[in-house]
Amino acid sequence: MSYENRQFLLAARPVGLPKASDWAYVKAPARMPEDGEVLLGVEYLSLDPAMRGWMNEGKSYIAPVKIGEVMRALGVGKVLESKAAGFSAGDYVSAGTGIQAYATLKAKELTKIDPTLAPLPVYLNVLGMTGMTAYFGLLEVGEPKAGETVVVSGAAGAVGATVGQLAKIKGCRVVGIAGGAEKCAFLVDELGFDAAVDYKAGDIRKPLKEACPNGIDVYFDNVGGEILDTCLALINLRARIVICGAISQYNNTTAVRGPANYLSLLVNRARMQGMVVFDYADRYGVAAREMAGWMAEGKLKGREDIVEGFENFPDTLLKLFTGENFGKLVLKVA
Amino acid sequence: MSYENRQFLLAARPVGLPKASDWAYVKAPARMPEDGEVLLGVEYLSLDPAMRGWMNEGKSYIAPVKIGEVMRALGVGKVLESKAAGFSAGDYVSAGTGIQAYATLKAKELTKIDPTLAPLPVYLNVLGMTGMTAYFGLLEVGEPKAGETVVVSGAAGAVGATVGQLAKIKGCRVVGIAGGAEKCAFLVDELGFDAAVDYKAGDIRKPLKEACPNGIDVYFDNVGGEILDTCLALINLRARIVICGAISQYNNTTAVRGPANYLSLLVNRARMQGMVVFDYADRYGVAAREMAGWMAEGKLKGREDIVEGFENFPDTLLKLFTGENFGKLVLKVA
Repeated sequence: MSYENRQFLLAARPVGLPKASDWAYVKAPARMPEDGEVLLGVEYLSLDPAMRGWMNEGKSYIAPVKIGEVMRALGVGKVLESKAAGFSAGDYVSAGTGIQAYATLKAKELTKIDPTLAPLPVYLNVLGMTGMTAYFGLLEVGEPKAGETVVVSGAAGAVGATVGQLAKIKGCRVVGIAGGAEKCAFLVDELGFDAAVDYKAGDIRKPLKEACPNGIDVYFDNVGGEILDTCLALINLRARIVICGAISQYNNTTAVRGPANYLSLLVNRARMQGMVVFDYADRYGVAAREMAGWMAEGKLKGREDIVEGFENFPDTLLKLFTGENFGKLVLKVA
Repeated sequence: MSYENRQFLLAARPVGLPKASDWAYVKAPARMPEDGEVLLGVEYLSLDPAMRGWMNEGKSYIAPVKIGEVMRALGVGKVLESKAAGFSAGDYVSAGTGIQAYATLKAKELTKIDPTLAPLPVYLNVLGMTGMTAYFGLLEVGEPKAGETVVVSGAAGAVGATVGQLAKIKGCRVVGIAGGAEKCAFLVDELGFDAAVDYKAGDIRKPLKEACPNGIDVYFDNVGGEILDTCLALINLRARIVICGAISQYNNTTAVRGPANYLSLLVNRARMQGMVVFDYADRYGVAAREMAGWMAEGKLKGREDIVEGFENFPDTLLKLFTGENFGKLVLKVA
């Protein structure tokens, strides 16, 4: 039996938004597994803002994707052929599959998942890296206390939506910043946020101030730029700012905009701290079990934005940067 | 007996560097003490970068000096008349005296000092607020560990020189950033820094990188601006950046320059945290005793830049912002 693979390789390092010519779409037979390996049929792929960073040259928290390599991505799929102990055809797993229809991977790269407990895309969202990022970023770096005010940007995105719900579970007042009335209504009506501020409706300073009558104790930043600056101006004494991402800056062709209000950290004895989810890998299991429990109780909901058409990967990825996607962006492969 | 006071009042809120017309110099009889008060003959005044911030309107860690008020400042002096239990004429004290020759203060505003243990200006430097800022900012917020690399900017200034020496006492590699060959030589030859980088000699990135072959674990920032950005680019995993001040930005007439490299916090899971010395007031005594011990052992030196001529206060203050002063800037009143 042979499998014709389809892959997106990184063809060039993008300047600004990734464009069609930055990718190479190739078809070739999938490599059959050797001892200790499995062949995976990839069913869903996670599209994440962090991918933009992986396309750049230079030192970061993870090596850049090389030119000519399959684009790095997380995925879930089914084991089709196994030469690895502990894995059988039919098992479902999550792994760093890359943007391809089939992936030949070592057993140690795989995490078994149970598709009867939750639909596969959930393992890319709340029960996957996205959920882990929200969980450890908010709880370990943000350290929210009951009664405090937590603000999250990119709140209708995958990480942001989970951050806000976790902060509610912890007894905080939660304010989301998102783009558009529909997303804002979703945060309040569906996810139980206390308030939402629409950054597309104009300057957020006044509505954000009104939504945070007691100031901001924790700001979970996914976007950077002007929104980070506005939040800095509203923080309380000993506030914690979690730097999880800066999607407004990832496609800059000029310098990153630094937070001009950073001296608010001094005035307020506050801290701004970066986080990378991989540091918490030894505790993913504990977190996933706790998150699954909250999902079962109806306290934590995920929303996936599932896009069909593997061949449309380059355009689908751009939805992350235009503010168009709503929930966890997932590419359906089959 | 009566005393003719001389005072500098804040006459206008400065735009950019404070100019002569932002001050009013007035002479008037000093108010004699009432019950619970003393009259202090001010001998030395502490001139600090933070004073520039106190002249601005707007919420900060301390209320702004009001227009028409005596400019806020720390000072040391001798009790001339006392109506307060526990204080007698001839006692020496430190206090928030303001920029004036005589100050009428309540007993609770005073801290007794011993001029036989150290010269009076030392109580405005290593054994005063300056030393406390260095001690708590470095040790509590920076959390340096033996063997780590600590970088401090404004290193020939009062806070910076103490920070560097404290980091040496804690077993760190210490690199100072200062302006000019003379200051840099002083840091290495007199204070025992491992290296010094002259920001006036050109782009600091290369020399700073060479001076920090193992990267930066703690950066104590007194200056902000381009130097903060350069240090951000060189930090290690889990680095700590202490935001103590931003003297390069205090006299801006345009927006503060935010640190464009702040995403290095994310990549390195690092934190940037502000500090204000007043938060540690209940432990000043402990710190001062420890610092006095290190001074007695010759491990910790202070350098004061004592300027005579009370009437020249407005020009003397500007030395802080031109990079001209060297050591703790002190105005001699008598």
